[in-house]
Amino acid sequence: MLQSTEDGDRYELLSPTALPKAGGFLWNQKMMIQITCRGYATAQFMQPEPSKYAHAPNLEAKTFMQPEQNYYAHHPGRFVYVKDEETGQLFSAPYEPVRAPLDRFVFSVGKSDVGWTIEHLGIRVELTLVIPTHDVVELWSVKVTNLTARPRRVSVYPYFPFGYMSWMNQEAEWKPDLGGIVSNSITPYQKATDYFKNKFLKDKSYFLCETTPTSWEAMQQAFEGEGGLHAPTSLQQPELSRSDARYETPVAVVQYRAELKTDEQREYRFLFGPAYDDAEIRTVRDKYLSKEGFAQTASEYAAYIAKGRGCLQIETPDKHVDNFVNNWLPRQCYYHGDVNRLTTDPQTRNYLQDNMGMSYIKPEVARKAFLIAVAQQEKNGAMPDGILLAEGAELKYINQIPHTDHCIWLPVTLEAYLSETGDYALLKEEVKGMHGDTYTVFERFSRAMDWLLSARDERGLSYIAQGDWCDPLNMVGYKGKGVSGWQTVATAFALKVWADVCEHEGKADLAAQYRAGAKIVNDAANEHLWDGDWFARGITDDNVTFGIKKDTEGRIWLNPQTWSILSGAASTEQIAKMLPEVDSQMSTPYGTVMFAPPYSGMREDVGRVTQKYPGSAENGSVYNHAAVFYVHSLYSIGETDRAYDVLRKMIPGPSEEDYVQRGQLPVYIPNYYRGAYQQYPRTAGRSSQLFNTGTVSWVYRSFIEGLCGLRGDAEGLCFEPQLPSFWDAIKVTRLFRGATFVIDIRRSADVTGVVVEYGGKALPEARFTNIQSGQTYELSVSIPK
Amino acid sequence: MLQSTEDGDRYELLSPTALPKAGGFLWNQKMMIQITCRGYATAQFMQPEPSKYAHAPNLEAKTFMQPEQNYYAHHPGRFVYVKDEETGQLFSAPYEPVRAPLDRFVFSVGKSDVGWTIEHLGIRVELTLVIPTHDVVELWSVKVTNLTARPRRVSVYPYFPFGYMSWMNQEAEWKPDLGGIVSNSITPYQKATDYFKNKFLKDKSYFLCETTPTSWEAMQQAFEGEGGLHAPTSLQQPELSRSDARYETPVAVVQYRAELKTDEQREYRFLFGPAYDDAEIRTVRDKYLSKEGFAQTASEYAAYIAKGRGCLQIETPDKHVDNFVNNWLPRQCYYHGDVNRLTTDPQTRNYLQDNMGMSYIKPEVARKAFLIAVAQQEKNGAMPDGILLAEGAELKYINQIPHTDHCIWLPVTLEAYLSETGDYALLKEEVKGMHGDTYTVFERFSRAMDWLLSARDERGLSYIAQGDWCDPLNMVGYKGKGVSGWQTVATAFALKVWADVCEHEGKADLAAQYRAGAKIVNDAANEHLWDGDWFARGITDDNVTFGIKKDTEGRIWLNPQTWSILSGAASTEQIAKMLPEVDSQMSTPYGTVMFAPPYSGMREDVGRVTQKYPGSAENGSVYNHAAVFYVHSLYSIGETDRAYDVLRKMIPGPSEEDYVQRGQLPVYIPNYYRGAYQQYPRTAGRSSQLFNTGTVSWVYRSFIEGLCGLRGDAEGLCFEPQLPSFWDAIKVTRLFRGATFVIDIRRSADVTGVVVEYGGKALPEARFTNIQSGQTYELSVSIPK
Repeated sequence: MLQSTEDGDRYELLSPTALPKAGGFLWNQKMMIQITCRGYATAQFMQPEPSKYAHAPNLEAKTFMQPEQNYYAHHPGRFVYVKDEETGQLFSAPYEPVRAPLDRFVFSVGKSDVGWTIEHLGIRVELTLVIPTHDVVELWSVKVTNLTARPRRVSVYPYFPFGYMSWMNQEAEWKPDLGGIVSNSITPYQKATDYFKNKFLKDKSYFLCETTPTSWEAMQQAFEGEGGLHAPTSLQQPELSRSDARYETPVAVVQYRAELKTDEQREYRFLFGPAYDDAEIRTVRDKYLSKEGFAQTASEYAAYIAKGRGCLQIETPDKHVDNFVNNWLPRQCYYHGDVNRLTTDPQTRNYLQDNMGMSYIKPEVARKAFLIAVAQQEKNGAMPDGILLAEGAELKYINQIPHTDHCIWLPVTLEAYLSETGDYALLKEEVKGMHGDTYTVFERFSRAMDWLLSARDERGLSYIAQGDWCDPLNMVGYKGKGVSGWQTVATAFALKVWADVCEHEGKADLAAQYRAGAKIVNDAANEHLWDGDWFARGITDDNVTFGIKKDTEGRIWLNPQTWSILSGAASTEQIAKMLPEVDSQMSTPYGTVMFAPPYSGMREDVGRVTQKYPGSAENGSVYNHAAVFYVHSLYSIGETDRAYDVLRKMIPGPSEEDYVQRGQLPVYIPNYYRGAYQQYPRTAGRSSQLFNTGTVSWVYRSFIEGLCGLRGDAEGLCFEPQLPSFWDAIKVTRLFRGATFVIDIRRSADVTGVVVEYGGKALPEARFTNIQSGQTYELSVSIPK
Repeated sequence: MLQSTEDGDRYELLSPTALPKAGGFLWNQKMMIQITCRGYATAQFMQPEPSKYAHAPNLEAKTFMQPEQNYYAHHPGRFVYVKDEETGQLFSAPYEPVRAPLDRFVFSVGKSDVGWTIEHLGIRVELTLVIPTHDVVELWSVKVTNLTARPRRVSVYPYFPFGYMSWMNQEAEWKPDLGGIVSNSITPYQKATDYFKNKFLKDKSYFLCETTPTSWEAMQQAFEGEGGLHAPTSLQQPELSRSDARYETPVAVVQYRAELKTDEQREYRFLFGPAYDDAEIRTVRDKYLSKEGFAQTASEYAAYIAKGRGCLQIETPDKHVDNFVNNWLPRQCYYHGDVNRLTTDPQTRNYLQDNMGMSYIKPEVARKAFLIAVAQQEKNGAMPDGILLAEGAELKYINQIPHTDHCIWLPVTLEAYLSETGDYALLKEEVKGMHGDTYTVFERFSRAMDWLLSARDERGLSYIAQGDWCDPLNMVGYKGKGVSGWQTVATAFALKVWADVCEHEGKADLAAQYRAGAKIVNDAANEHLWDGDWFARGITDDNVTFGIKKDTEGRIWLNPQTWSILSGAASTEQIAKMLPEVDSQMSTPYGTVMFAPPYSGMREDVGRVTQKYPGSAENGSVYNHAAVFYVHSLYSIGETDRAYDVLRKMIPGPSEEDYVQRGQLPVYIPNYYRGAYQQYPRTAGRSSQLFNTGTVSWVYRSFIEGLCGLRGDAEGLCFEPQLPSFWDAIKVTRLFRGATFVIDIRRSADVTGVVVEYGGKALPEARFTNIQSGQTYELSVSIPK
């Protein structure tokens, strides 16, 4: 069903029905397209807010990216019909809309392209999609080959629906001067002032043809007729009707009649995208619509993607894991850090974590992000719910709901940046804030920590307001009294991490102060939240503790356990009680769930999470972002095998059964896999198909710092590998501060601790200093059996 | 293609492809359903804001009712598949989703029901939909008959998709205790406070079966499989899979296996609707889901609709017009007045005009509406943009944009109410306003007139702000200076109408004052807006007069001409110049357009109308609401034939060519027919398919007071028929103030004016006074040849 290239940088799906929602995605700074193996697509571009150039058939809501998209016949997509002109037989590539049983189907997802090879009726159709590095346009190539021993007459019909563009204005027609079908619309508005806001939006969409087609059609309903999408009436005619669309749903369909000798191939190229006016369309055409333009774009885009290859190449006993970590994981991190999920107001926690991932890829980007973020710190030291990245951007959706956790992410993400770069100079930068105050980065972090310490109740527990992180419990503290168990121990963890930085900066008094603060917070957690075998999730406005043994739903939550380990609130004895409970109550074949059992209905003092579908992102699913922190905490206490088990389950495959149940290719980690493993086994494990997630930077960090144990400090690189017990050896190439470390890590009966050899000599400690940029160092690392 | 019953209260469409978007609609106080001949449906219910219980397949935008809905394979609808169990052949009623060529198709739209009769493969399927008078539920009956001489084995599968209900939660399953498929969702929210707002929303939808089916299916994608909606995979199996939907798109499909002898019939009944909880579903089931329940509901609903039969029955040389005026026109007026377009904040102008229509149907409703409206008058005398009808209602959509015309509608709608009822007592009612002030209705109207007089510039012309009525030109006056030609002459008209009321109320000084005001306003219009052959549409903020000869687009506008006739601004000489210009520049086979030529692109000093699609509601279409005022003005000056020509064109048919071009049945008048007759002849005349329009109360008034000339005054009924010159006689039954007038109107060479005979004697004037409620008067009216 699935095959991969030797080095795992390409996956090929051999059936369109096995994983019907599986797809790939491409992006650049201005656009993103997610496309399924069957040809359905979801694309957006920034102007500067996310916009679409191909729409659903009805008036869609503007919304954040939704998980588990459902597809239906008229979902936007990119398709090519092929008709045998001798028999009238029809099929379509990649699979929709005709859904003919194909002789061969290959959906091929590369790191910088997506393509298909389809064979049916003795005709091969090859589709390839690439995008450029800076413009918003899809470059489609369609190759058609006669595989039979006789000449063939075929018609090839690319079908690219524009969808319902606007209630105010929509139309489309063939434009001979531009060589394509151009649709036009007006973004609807009612207030006069909005006219000026919308004035320069790209309200046109185009489908340009390198070669002038035989005929065309610009109106959806005329095209389909009574035949429907699977057998359009227009395709039963010798030629398309050349109809325009006047307020009717616009579409781009063109026909190429071709006579093909045996083995003869015809190649067609097309551009699809949005534009402001005809001049822009002409410019795009001139720049891209040629064989050379396509080749150059593909190569430039591949080079752009290659810049995100990250700092780690591994060779382990699990080739599937290698492929993922070497290719797809840094690519997903790069996507997050490079485009901030294509939003103009990323959640502060997401912005910091996504940029933490850039510490391993393009640390200068991460550095800048810290400066941008702290410049938006509020005067009282709190961080806002979102970071504004574009002029005129506004806090939208969930960013309008007050959450209390944003400050926590400052030190925990900075820690990774400092470990990777040693760039403590960042802390001394003066940052003028958007509210008019000026502080150094160091001061701003301290002020954020002070705010965290202040945002606690008389018991010393942290307020939750309308939500903290990861599992928004929006009713726990909306009256202003409820507290969060997670936020409490996370506060302690943040303080401890920050105290270490203070110490490094020579501020021992501050370090001591924050450590003392952390202890007070941890003590409060232990006093009020320890339930005998695990930590509670919180205490409501009305003083009801929840996430405890006597709860029949939402009885145990992952985050308070994880972070109490990280914060030190949990003693060794407590940890020894907690871990088996997590195992027995929360572990599933698809990962560790966020809490268990899922809520079956509303609990009014807990709130929104209980209204989400059981097994959804929030209600008892395998929420990977929570799970990866569990991994992080397990590595911090040497729970190597437990850590690897959870980490491994984040990557789909390689068994066919696993792919089918999860429903996706191993080209990214989704934000969740469905939970409710006991209640709804049919759907448990199913992927959200949503690749936007703070998970990935932590997964990468877990592989780098945890499993490989290759973490930096101010002066050098430290070695503390934590291989799972059933692995004897791995090989690692680690880029670090401009140098390349080629490392052979293996177990040895001869050592009791980590021993690093360089040039045949053991280093005095498991730490490599005095690193010269540009050098390659070959090291052997021995770890105990 | 189309046939109607003898008395025109039912239309039957004989092909699903001739008028694919044609449909019917049913409503009650809490819901509305519009359903097309092919089975697609758009339904909403009030809780109190408009909501849906069957959704599109994706996350739809919340929006006002859109014109020219486009349908696509997965558009919500109500369908029944039938499978021949011997051959496996499949078809569906009414037509979608299989689209099998049918042996017989009848779509039958009655005033209080909608139904279909379909025959294919020797099987007849009859579908009927009725709704109750007060609850939100659809009652579907499905009859299946074997028309062949041999026994048949069939499976009957109602397919009612629930669609994409919510990103937060959606699921569905067969509930044996309720005897149906019940879907569940949570209306998404993010703020804790919204939880309480949403708490009692009806988030469940149900499909209940009177008879337990053989099998069922609750998940859309499992049902369709690879077959698609036209040939669902599940229907190729002996039984449906009984799958639930867990966050997948929910659907209701059930199977009935039936063995039918020759002529044997099976009847199934179903309920479809929204509910808060299982208890409500059980109550609905108990009340409606039986043969008796269906019969009683149908009869009660028919009785409810009959209450809206209006005050006029005509018998003219044009039977098609009779059918429309006697049945469908009052029904459409009734819909508007009864449910206020199912919105909680109708635009003030719509609210007043819709209730004006109720003057002829249920005058007590109209009376109450005037009281509600003026209670929301602002302290300065202005009327708000919308009238709030429910607790918690807010001004939405276009009601958030300031428009200046609302006061105008007070006297022009009241005039109809007073003519019909003679209820001048209404004027003396004291009304405490929502802003705390108390005035009589009379005083409030005067204050509104004073406000109109005040809202003018130094030239005496009326400001337009971000729009007036009918053709929102949102950029003309957004800087606060631009003026409206229409609003100016409409102000004068309103003042004159109100002056007449003042005079009747014995306030001669006020009457004189408002008449003087009207003259000043009319004079200003003549000074600044008369362009030689017609009146200009307005003057922009930057002092550019538009709607004039030198404009190549938007050169002549209907409303300023119409209302200058009504207001008296236009002299006889001016009218003689204007009317031929309207004829030659604006008349089309589908009516008189709002302006001509349509704009092809944005004119920044005019605004939104120019950004609408050419030929759309606003950009140069036959906007019926504007056209009917033209009719009103033509009757006011005795332009009988011109008036009838415009009026007649509002009613589709009866030629097949006309139906096809307009695309709808003659069961309502849409808000527009597409214009741009010169530019886009292919689509000109096409119906918006939107039956919400202020047009219809004026069309009814035009037939009653204009064509039939049967208008009341304070003491009685006046006679001034204006038959088109090519009619010699009509018969009219007119209900008026509790009496019934049976009137024979015919041309006579013996009269030079209108002569009314009662009991064989001519009345002294063309006016009948001393009317006794409950009496029937038979009158003969002679008018000059």
